[in-house]
Amino acid sequence: MIEALLPRAEAEARFPSYARVPLGEHALIPGLVNAHTHAAMALMRGIADDLPLMRWLEEHIWPIEARHVSPQFVRDGTLLACAEMLRGGVTCFNDMYFFPEAALEAALAAGMRVSLGMIVLDFPSVYAADPDDYLAKGLALRDRWREHPLVSFCLAPHAPYTVSDATFRKIAKIAAEIDVPVHIHVHETAEELERSVAEHGVRPLARLQRLGLLGPGLIAVHAVHLSDEEIALLARHGASVAHCPSSNLKLASGLAPVARITAAGINLSLGTDGAASNNRLDLLEEMRLAALLAKAAAHDAEAMPAHAALHAATLGGATALGLQARIGSIVPGKAADLVAVRLLPPEAESDSFPELSPCYDPLSHLVYTAAREQVTDVWVAGKRLLDGRKSNNPALFGLNTRCKVWQNTLRARPEP
Amino acid sequence: MIEALLPRAEAEARFPSYARVPLGEHALIPGLVNAHTHAAMALMRGIADDLPLMRWLEEHIWPIEARHVSPQFVRDGTLLACAEMLRGGVTCFNDMYFFPEAALEAALAAGMRVSLGMIVLDFPSVYAADPDDYLAKGLALRDRWREHPLVSFCLAPHAPYTVSDATFRKIAKIAAEIDVPVHIHVHETAEELERSVAEHGVRPLARLQRLGLLGPGLIAVHAVHLSDEEIALLARHGASVAHCPSSNLKLASGLAPVARITAAGINLSLGTDGAASNNRLDLLEEMRLAALLAKAAAHDAEAMPAHAALHAATLGGATALGLQARIGSIVPGKAADLVAVRLLPPEAESDSFPELSPCYDPLSHLVYTAAREQVTDVWVAGKRLLDGRKSNNPALFGLNTRCKVWQNTLRARPEP
Repeated sequence: MIEALLPRAEAEARFPSYARVPLGEHALIPGLVNAHTHAAMALMRGIADDLPLMRWLEEHIWPIEARHVSPQFVRDGTLLACAEMLRGGVTCFNDMYFFPEAALEAALAAGMRVSLGMIVLDFPSVYAADPDDYLAKGLALRDRWREHPLVSFCLAPHAPYTVSDATFRKIAKIAAEIDVPVHIHVHETAEELERSVAEHGVRPLARLQRLGLLGPGLIAVHAVHLSDEEIALLARHGASVAHCPSSNLKLASGLAPVARITAAGINLSLGTDGAASNNRLDLLEEMRLAALLAKAAAHDAEAMPAHAALHAATLGGATALGLQARIGSIVPGKAADLVAVRLLPPEAESDSFPELSPCYDPLSHLVYTAAREQVTDVWVAGKRLLDGRKSNNPALFGLNTRCKVWQNTLRARPEP
Repeated sequence: MIEALLPRAEAEARFPSYARVPLGEHALIPGLVNAHTHAAMALMRGIADDLPLMRWLEEHIWPIEARHVSPQFVRDGTLLACAEMLRGGVTCFNDMYFFPEAALEAALAAGMRVSLGMIVLDFPSVYAADPDDYLAKGLALRDRWREHPLVSFCLAPHAPYTVSDATFRKIAKIAAEIDVPVHIHVHETAEELERSVAEHGVRPLARLQRLGLLGPGLIAVHAVHLSDEEIALLARHGASVAHCPSSNLKLASGLAPVARITAAGINLSLGTDGAASNNRLDLLEEMRLAALLAKAAAHDAEAMPAHAALHAATLGGATALGLQARIGSIVPGKAADLVAVRLLPPEAESDSFPELSPCYDPLSHLVYTAAREQVTDVWVAGKRLLDGRKSNNPALFGLNTRCKVWQNTLRARPEP
């Protein structure tokens, strides 16, 4: 836990026995919260690029998943994702994938905080047979782990086009009973909206409203295509948006109206999405890109200034996950999820890190200039998981070799 | 020079005395060409953010420049920029700034290839008194240095809103006589177009056409706002576009129609712009962002696939600068401007570089996954300037200290 924020001399007087970590050239920021990812898909990083969402899913991702996804795949893939995310200053991630028990195991082995999605689809997968089976498995996992200090849960109906009205109604009922957020892809592409109008007579957010899914626990992932009325609707219900800038560009989904979203008072968080559509799990990159893209989308260079981007990547994510009382800012009483980012060249070296020189404004520097390779130290719940860019976690030994085996297995797929 | 491209055994047989650099986990790519920058502005990195172009220029950048820019400023700023660019795999840059003789000195001290802009404006600066003075100084510099193998020149009229018809006519005449490219900011913002219509009756490209500036040597920087007719016009004249994605977003200039530009057969190159509007001189980042943004701008996830982005960052830039016979691709007879980018974790380490694992497609990996910290080795004209991420160039010693002095000097500015 964070005990106190004090001037150095006072801290040394009050806590003389505590270890000291000198970070004179760094910014110390709250651990970054990745509000939307499919961590295990790290094993599919770059397996299919330059394709639109539905072709990418139907011709590549889903066939590979049907053939290869297993608890071992999810365990190795999530461990790879955790190793990458920690090196980039992400201390907590909101996951949506099959076999969440394997993702949980990997996250805890890595030492990370995780919000696990109790995933639900209306079609069968290697993980579950039908919506009730998905829900039963997710809820059983939550019952076993809900007291763990690093673990929390969301209900995670995949998307409007993969979940039926009947299933959404069940999810709304359960969400109200057990008070967990609802994590869903929504209003991602124009095609999704057209299909919803054709099949349900309304756009997806109106449908979710009709089914009782709108509320302060809703995490609307992507939310690229929003009318003013839909923004007002999300604001009125206290919902959060998980903005995924790289993924929205890569799949040509569009530019999310971030300035209008935040102006309406909606809580904004940032996500990397999975490595198969990004291809990095790099929340500092998403932070920079969010700040840049918001300006272009709003035709306003003052839109989403640096501090708003940092807020979205930290407290915004924590709030979306319902964890704002425990993480997301550096406040006594919150968990010590902390990240040190180098902002200045080392004093002793006269020619290193030219890309960090000069520094007029630490916040601008953090968002627009620094990148994840400047993350030097990471703590989760007070445990130092990255120390001068080095991780000494035995759980990661041999990881690259295991990933190579997966790569060879997946690459051997028949052409779609 | 690149002598030959051969299978390893044949190379070892034919050139037994040559040094060998094992790069089994890397991609070897042509040195990146930064087709548009103001290198010395690295000293103003992040000094004013989150502002639209004209306010940013008039209230911040121009007053600072009027007070502080000098040959020493340009020498130190350009050296800082070169140090940063080399670490990111940029081997050649196309510069537009005051005191180009100081930029030249810095580029050669760093060992980089440089295309120097003979800058021209219709208002006086600390560097020159009037258009004739700018031109005389630029041309005299070119006369002294034009035979140097690492140095080339462009005429660089700053922009349509800072250069008069009379000056443009002179530049067109000189460009035809000495056959150098013309490097100009053009069609960057909606405001620029409106102003041109109000003052000249036509949009800037039509004005440049009228004044004889359109031709295969034109490097149209930014080119964000282009009608179909203007794209056809650029294509017909064989002009190049220098696309600056980060800068266009940060100043809210808009999304350049990259897919339409390349579909018309226009040569596309990439630029970082200056560090004051980016805030990185990171062409790998611009390459990724160009590929991502082109998809969103075109509503087409197949727009600008990875290979097109790499082409723009290498041969596209070389072609814009008229250097395509000497650099831009790995071909025997071209200069050995080469960059090694790590794409795989080191064989010996079982848990390092998780962000590079797995790798299905080296080209996708290079554009979407790798970043400049994966650049390990850089050669310019066969000289190794980065060796395992280390530069041992004595010209860079003390650079950070000098930059800190500049930072303190610039920070002391009166509020605008």
